[in-house]
Amino acid sequence: MIPRDTHLHIGSLLFEGIDQIDLTGPFEVLSRIPNSTYRIYGKTSAPVRDLKGLLLTPDATLGDAPPLDVLHVPGGRGQEALMDDAEVLGWIAQQAASASSIFSVCTGALLCGAAGLLKGRRATTHWASFHLLPFFGAIPINERVVVDGAWIFAAGVTAGIDGALRLAAELRGDEAAQAIQLHMVYAPEPPFNAGTPETAPAAIVAQARQSARDLTAKRERTAQRIAAKLDIPVPTQVHPMSSTAEEPLATNEGLSALPPGWPAYRDFTKPTL
Amino acid sequence: MIPRDTHLHIGSLLFEGIDQIDLTGPFEVLSRIPNSTYRIYGKTSAPVRDLKGLLLTPDATLGDAPPLDVLHVPGGRGQEALMDDAEVLGWIAQQAASASSIFSVCTGALLCGAAGLLKGRRATTHWASFHLLPFFGAIPINERVVVDGAWIFAAGVTAGIDGALRLAAELRGDEAAQAIQLHMVYAPEPPFNAGTPETAPAAIVAQARQSARDLTAKRERTAQRIAAKLDIPVPTQVHPMSSTAEEPLATNEGLSALPPGWPAYRDFTKPTL
Repeated sequence: MIPRDTHLHIGSLLFEGIDQIDLTGPFEVLSRIPNSTYRIYGKTSAPVRDLKGLLLTPDATLGDAPPLDVLHVPGGRGQEALMDDAEVLGWIAQQAASASSIFSVCTGALLCGAAGLLKGRRATTHWASFHLLPFFGAIPINERVVVDGAWIFAAGVTAGIDGALRLAAELRGDEAAQAIQLHMVYAPEPPFNAGTPETAPAAIVAQARQSARDLTAKRERTAQRIAAKLDIPVPTQVHPMSSTAEEPLATNEGLSALPPGWPAYRDFTKPTL
Repeated sequence: MIPRDTHLHIGSLLFEGIDQIDLTGPFEVLSRIPNSTYRIYGKTSAPVRDLKGLLLTPDATLGDAPPLDVLHVPGGRGQEALMDDAEVLGWIAQQAASASSIFSVCTGALLCGAAGLLKGRRATTHWASFHLLPFFGAIPINERVVVDGAWIFAAGVTAGIDGALRLAAELRGDEAAQAIQLHMVYAPEPPFNAGTPETAPAAIVAQARQSARDLTAKRERTAQRIAAKLDIPVPTQVHPMSSTAEEPLATNEGLSALPPGWPAYRDFTKPTL
């Protein structure tokens, strides 16, 4: 816990093709951390669209950010386009070096990995990218929220809410986190037990595997390339989640969220900018 | 369940001072309903700020909306400023009249009530405004998600995620909702059991009561005035949640989310537009 009278600068990274709830779930918590300033930073100050079209606007650009006490790196399909972006990766690395907490949500972990920050670190990410963590030198831990020193990793998408509340407790104590949880009326009652590949109906998991196989294959190629760049020994065994395994567990990001048997309708959701 | 080949028009209301996760939680679900078009509608097309400063931009204005099959009305402190807004209330009433589903989140229920739509309806809302439902002619049901015919009511804030998944199941069947739930990796693990006034530590609930007493009192006066306007018999008993009761349970919206003992720091979060 950081002394109460130490003012905290908290910043989230925003980028085109983010999965919006990787940002907006934690926003509800991070914007309510006592004695803090919270800002959202983008490559430019222009609005971007999340992968389903929600328009989100940064408060400021990366260059405007002060040294952050808390750095939040969300994920989503658009992460893949940033895996060689020297400006974004450099910003993440520089901020992480002096931050007292780094909070990765979903495939934000891959960005942190590409920035060279995951070597030897216990980490998690979205289940469909979980098998990629060793390519960045990380030790994969299959839990919803993983805490490793200054780092907090939340697994997929809505896990960012749970991770942010854990972060609030680390920063300001359990009571501060509980006050925010009460504000959020966060006493979830999911109508189905279908939130993970282990619990969802098999046919739905199979559809999720199938629909995003291409994106996962692309991420695997990127991970292999970055492993070589960072001089990380590449895992030799094909992981059962890999797209090259017989029963691939491909990412559900980018999946159309159609149940089995539904025709592939044209995507009527909002266009990208 | 609506026939698969019936295309659905889904729309959310956006307004200044919304609690952003009342919109963005459901967004993650509503933007993935199979065979649908999902848009966010504002009084103007200009960006607005949520009550903690998140910039959100409508896709179109109220007047641009087609007759919606699904109407989503979120809440948040800014709802109070719309309780006499003829344009917004008229839009809600007109859309609700022909929609096959109406989805209220948090104090969005009060807007629906001001539009005259809650008479005789089983409903819920944020716990701090729960005692106001009878002023709009509603029957208060103390559950996280309440389904009454074409209506789905989610209680406070994050309850919108659970409600949206219930709505997805009503519209497109359980498997469609489960596919979306898997996409969202929605298998929550709250770090504390503090999400409701019944379960949160007493001192934190007391702080929540105290900090937003003024807003609840204002909402009570508005509810009384609207009850008179809509010719609804006003409840005569003082509800234990009322701000005029001895132990008022005032709203936690607008609360600073400070645990007991924290000094009231200046609000360093983002300014309003």
